[in-house]
Amino acid sequence: MADKTVFRATTTAPVNIAVIKYWGKRDASLNLPTNSSLSVTLSQRSLRTLTTASCSAAYPASEGDTLALNGKPQDIASSKRTVACLSHLRALRRELEAADPSLPKLSTYPLRIVSENNFPTAAGLASSAAGFAALVRAVADLYQLPQSPTELSRIARQGSGSACRSLLGGYVAWRAGTQADGSDSIAEEVAPASHWPEMRALILVVSAEKKDVPSTEGMQSTVATSELFATRAQTVVPARMSAIEAAIRDRDFPAFAEITMRDSNTFHATCLDSWPPIFYMNDVSRAAVRLVHDINRVVGKTVCAYTFDAGPNAVIYYLDEDSELVAGTFKAILGSAIEGWEGPFGDRLKGVTAGVDLEKLDSRAVDVLKNGISRVILTGVGEGPVKVDTHLVSETGEIRSAQ
Amino acid sequence: MADKTVFRATTTAPVNIAVIKYWGKRDASLNLPTNSSLSVTLSQRSLRTLTTASCSAAYPASEGDTLALNGKPQDIASSKRTVACLSHLRALRRELEAADPSLPKLSTYPLRIVSENNFPTAAGLASSAAGFAALVRAVADLYQLPQSPTELSRIARQGSGSACRSLLGGYVAWRAGTQADGSDSIAEEVAPASHWPEMRALILVVSAEKKDVPSTEGMQSTVATSELFATRAQTVVPARMSAIEAAIRDRDFPAFAEITMRDSNTFHATCLDSWPPIFYMNDVSRAAVRLVHDINRVVGKTVCAYTFDAGPNAVIYYLDEDSELVAGTFKAILGSAIEGWEGPFGDRLKGVTAGVDLEKLDSRAVDVLKNGISRVILTGVGEGPVKVDTHLVSETGEIRSAQ
Repeated sequence: MADKTVFRATTTAPVNIAVIKYWGKRDASLNLPTNSSLSVTLSQRSLRTLTTASCSAAYPASEGDTLALNGKPQDIASSKRTVACLSHLRALRRELEAADPSLPKLSTYPLRIVSENNFPTAAGLASSAAGFAALVRAVADLYQLPQSPTELSRIARQGSGSACRSLLGGYVAWRAGTQADGSDSIAEEVAPASHWPEMRALILVVSAEKKDVPSTEGMQSTVATSELFATRAQTVVPARMSAIEAAIRDRDFPAFAEITMRDSNTFHATCLDSWPPIFYMNDVSRAAVRLVHDINRVVGKTVCAYTFDAGPNAVIYYLDEDSELVAGTFKAILGSAIEGWEGPFGDRLKGVTAGVDLEKLDSRAVDVLKNGISRVILTGVGEGPVKVDTHLVSETGEIRSAQ
Repeated sequence: MADKTVFRATTTAPVNIAVIKYWGKRDASLNLPTNSSLSVTLSQRSLRTLTTASCSAAYPASEGDTLALNGKPQDIASSKRTVACLSHLRALRRELEAADPSLPKLSTYPLRIVSENNFPTAAGLASSAAGFAALVRAVADLYQLPQSPTELSRIARQGSGSACRSLLGGYVAWRAGTQADGSDSIAEEVAPASHWPEMRALILVVSAEKKDVPSTEGMQSTVATSELFATRAQTVVPARMSAIEAAIRDRDFPAFAEITMRDSNTFHATCLDSWPPIFYMNDVSRAAVRLVHDINRVVGKTVCAYTFDAGPNAVIYYLDEDSELVAGTFKAILGSAIEGWEGPFGDRLKGVTAGVDLEKLDSRAVDVLKNGISRVILTGVGEGPVKVDTHLVSETGEIRSAQ
C-alpha cells in the first residue's frame, strides 16, 4: 500500500515596485536583463501571495504536477516558465536525496501547488513577481533546500524576471550579471527593511483602461527598436544604480526620490521611442506626476516621488513623517470615501482630511486625478517571504481556500 | 521740406511643420541648434502671415521702428530677437547705400511694420516661424537686398529658430552648422514643392488645454537635464536626416512616414526624459497616434504619418491619392460638421464621408479623438514667401487691415 503522507510547505511572498526599472532582456529564455534594477519590497500586511506546495506518493502520477491559482486550475505544461522553475527545484532536491538516501524521494512525487493573491481584483498590479517568488520559496521549503534566497532568486528569475527581487525584503538589487548562463544574474539585499523602515508607498489605481502592450512583448520591442534604449541600459542605469544605493545607505530621501522619478521617466521615454510607440502612462498618470512635483514645490523640499510600471497606476513613495503632507493631500483630493485609506498603514491618516493647500496645486491636474482614480492602496516597505502554516492543501491533499 | 515718400514691400510667408524636429540650442542668443532639422513648408492658401514693411523719412524718428501684429502694437525694443533681425537687415542696406550713393538712405528711416496672421485664433499653431520669415523677407524686399533666401535664413534664424525654414518652399533642411558665429547654420531647399506636390497635411487641433512649458524654455531644460538627449542629437538625428532626404528625393512615402513618426516620438521621449519631465502630448494625441497606426495596418501599407510639435495638436501627413483613406477616415470619425473640411484643399473630400472601416480601428481611440478635436486644417506642401501688393500700410503711411 502506497504511503499516503502529504508533505506540505506554505509561504507568503511580497510584491515589489522597482525604483530603477527592469526593461529589456539580453536572453529571453533565461530572463536575463539588459540592465540591473532595484526595488522596494512592499509589506505583506497589504499585498501578498499565499502559496502552499505539497507532494505525495498518493497523488495520481497521471495528473502530473498541478497548480491552482485563485481557485482556478492552471495548465502547467503550457507554461514553460513554471516548468523551468519546478524542474530546477526538483533537480536540487534530487541532489539532496542522492547525498542522503534516508530522505523521502519527494523529487519523484507529483506536486500539488495552490496559490492565492489578496490583491484587489481590478488593481492592475503585476502579480507574477509575488506569484513566482512564492512558488519557488514554497517548493524550496517543501524540498528543504539549503539554498539562500539569493541562490533561489536565480530560479525565480526564470519564472518572471522581477520575481527574483520578491524573494528578499527591504531594498533589493537585481544584478544583471554578465554570464551567458545567467549564474550571476541574481537578486541581493541592498538594505533590510529595518534599515529604513519609514518608507511608505501609496498606490493610485487608475480606473480600468484597456491594457497596452504586455510587458514581455513591450520590452522586446523597445530593445529591438528604440534608438535611445542602449544609452539608458549601458550608461544611465549603471550610474543611477550606484547613486540610489548610496541614497538608500544614507537614508537620503530627496536623492532617492529624484533618481526614482527620473528613472521612471527615462523608462517610459524609451517606451515612447519604441516602434511602434508604447504608451503606458495616460492623462491621469500625468496628473499624478504634476501633483507630486507641485507638492514638493509647495512644501519646499522633496517629500514624495512617483514611479510607473508598465501601466498607468502611480506608486508614490514618501516617508512616514510626511504622511499628512503627501497621503493627506491625495486623500483631500480623492476623498475619504474612496477605498483603500483604511488597513494596516491607515492609522496615521485616520482623521486626516487635508495635506498641503489644494489651491496651490495645478487645478486641472487635481480634477483629472479626482476623476481618474478608482482606489488607493496604502502600504510601505516590508519583509521577504514568510513561512506560515495556513496551508491551502489539507493533510489529506484536498485543496482549500484561505478566504 | 521733408520727403514724404513711403517705401513699402509686402510679403506672405508660410508655416512649416518639421518632420525631423529642432529641439535644443547650442547657442541661445544666436539660436544655433544642437541638431539639423527638416520640414515641409505648408501652403499659404491655408495658413500664412502677411507682412508689410515700410519706411519713410516722414515717420517720426521719436517713435523709432514700430511693429503691429494682428492689430496690436508690439514693443520692439523689448524683443531682443526682433531688434537683432532688424539691425542685421539695416546693416545690409547700409552696405548697399555705401556702394551706391544714389540710393535713398532707407537705412536711416524708421520702419513701420504691420503683420497679420490668417490662422484660426484657437488653433494653437506656432506662428513665430511664419512671422519672423515674413518680417525678414518684407524688410529685405523693402531694402532691395540681393541676398538669397538661404542667406536671409541666417537672419530669420535669430528671430525664431524654425523661422529660417519658412523662407523657402517645399522640403527644407536647416543645417545645424558647426561655426561658433552661426554663419553656416542656414536653411536650404532639399526639394521644391513641385518635386513632390502630392504631399498633404491634416492638422487635428486639440481642444484648448493649458499650454505646457514654452518651447524655448522646454528645449533648454531638455539639453541641460535629459540623459538621452545627446544620443538623439549626435547619433539618431544625423542618420535620420540622410534617410529622410533620400526618401524625399525618391518620393518614398512609407520611408518618409516612418522616419517622421519615429522622430516625433524620439523628440517627445527626450521631453519626458527631461527634469522635471515635459509632456506635450496628451490622451487625444495618443489616440491620433493609435489611429494612424491602425489606418496603416488596415490599409496594409503606410499611407499616413503623425508628427507633434511642442503641443498636443497632431499633424497627419499623407499623399493626395490617399485622401479618402486618410482624411476620409478622420472626417468619418470627427464628423463633417467640424470646421476645416472646406477650403482650398477640400475639393477632393467633398462628399466623402467614410474612409477605412471604423469597426477595424481601436474604438476607444476613436471615442477619445471624436471628443478631443475642436477643428481641423486641411493643407499641403506649398511655396516659400511670395511678394504681394495688398499692402497693410497705405501710400501715406496709415496702417490698414487685409481683413
